[in-house]
Amino acid sequence: MKAVAEIQVVPIGVGVSVRAQVRRAQELIRESNLVVQEHSFGTNVEGDLEDILAVVARIHEVLHLEGTSRLSTAIKLGTRTDKEPDLASKLR
Amino acid sequence: MKAVAEIQVVPIGVGVSVRAQVRRAQELIRESNLVVQEHSFGTNVEGDLEDILAVVARIHEVLHLEGTSRLSTAIKLGTRTDKEPDLASKLR
Amino acid sequence: MKAVAEIQVVPIGVGVSVRAQVRRAQELIRESNLVVQEHSFGTNVEGDLEDILAVVARIHEVLHLEGTSRLSTAIKLGTRTDKEPDLASKLR
Amino acid sequence: MKAVAEIQVVPIGVGVSVRAQVRRAQELIRESNLVVQEHSFGTNVEGDLEDILAVVARIHEVLHLEGTSRLSTAIKLGTRTDKEPDLASKLR
Repeated sequence: MKAVAEIQVVPIGVGVSVRAQVRRAQELIRESNLVVQEHSFGTNVEGDLEDILAVVARIHEVLHLEGTSRLSTAIKLGTRTDKEPDLASKLR
Repeated sequence: MKAVAEIQVVPIGVGVSVRAQVRRAQELIRESNLVVQEHSFGTNVEGDLEDILAVVARIHEVLHLEGTSRLSTAIKLGTRTDKEPDLASKLR
Repeated sequence: MKAVAEIQVVPIGVGVSVRAQVRRAQELIRESNLVVQEHSFGTNVEGDLEDILAVVARIHEVLHLEGTSRLSTAIKLGTRTDKEPDLASKLR
Repeated sequence: MKAVAEIQVVPIGVGVSVRAQVRRAQELIRESNLVVQEHSFGTNVEGDLEDILAVVARIHEVLHLEGTSRLSTAIKLGTRTDKEPDLASKLR
């Protein structure tokens, strides 16, 4: 199933600046097969629902492995059957 | 990986009352192996990260199959490595 | 205007445990005139929209004054004109 | 207090397409004194916390007056005291 989503990763316990971990999450999202649009409150993606959920799981796995002890991620997920969901048409 | 999450499903295009679809989503969450706590802005769950993401995908699949044409789901996802994440300790 | 909302405060830069700041935020919400329901991913409130927005601003002011340097708050806000919005009916 | 925020308005009960109401909300945000960045999952804003909360209240008031019977808005709100929060630096 095709879906659009917004993924925002908030690392907790790494200090006031969370930039390094947020960049790493963005990198992992860009390595996926998803259409990617970064903005100041997260990364919007478009693609297969399974791929979107897989990249969310991967972010948590990789960031924990690399030393972040706590992660809080906010995801907005959109699907529809009347037409293919896509990021571009949500902006028109 | 163990995780805690909040899942809030908003059906769009079913009218002003979204109760039937929200109840169906809650039913699907209760059928999973997750610890479940329902509240007025979603359902909090505790369990394996894969199971949590699987139930999110299942809600979208089933509700679309049953006639809802558009779904917007908000998910908050928490994991940590310093201790097992659980819903109960977040309330203490 | 009457409204229902969920308020979740995430302090950043205070360490892996955020309990002290979350409790302080809950305390400030309880001091308001709102109906309050605490759960593991935030506090649900019911009351006047202005009072809800005022308590959000107050949380940011007070927590910063008391030493938290960064706050990320997630708010879900619901209003409707077909009937009075309330937390209880969202659970039925 | 200066703040950054993301505002996403979801009208409920207006049908599967929510474009007209979302555009109206964007228009109201652009009429404010805030720095505005629109994207596919909401509008990011930067400015005074009071102005941000005021525009949220205004969106609910105006959209209800203009006929939308139910609104669900998701807001992410960020403030910090170590430096001025701004949208641009969150992208670097």
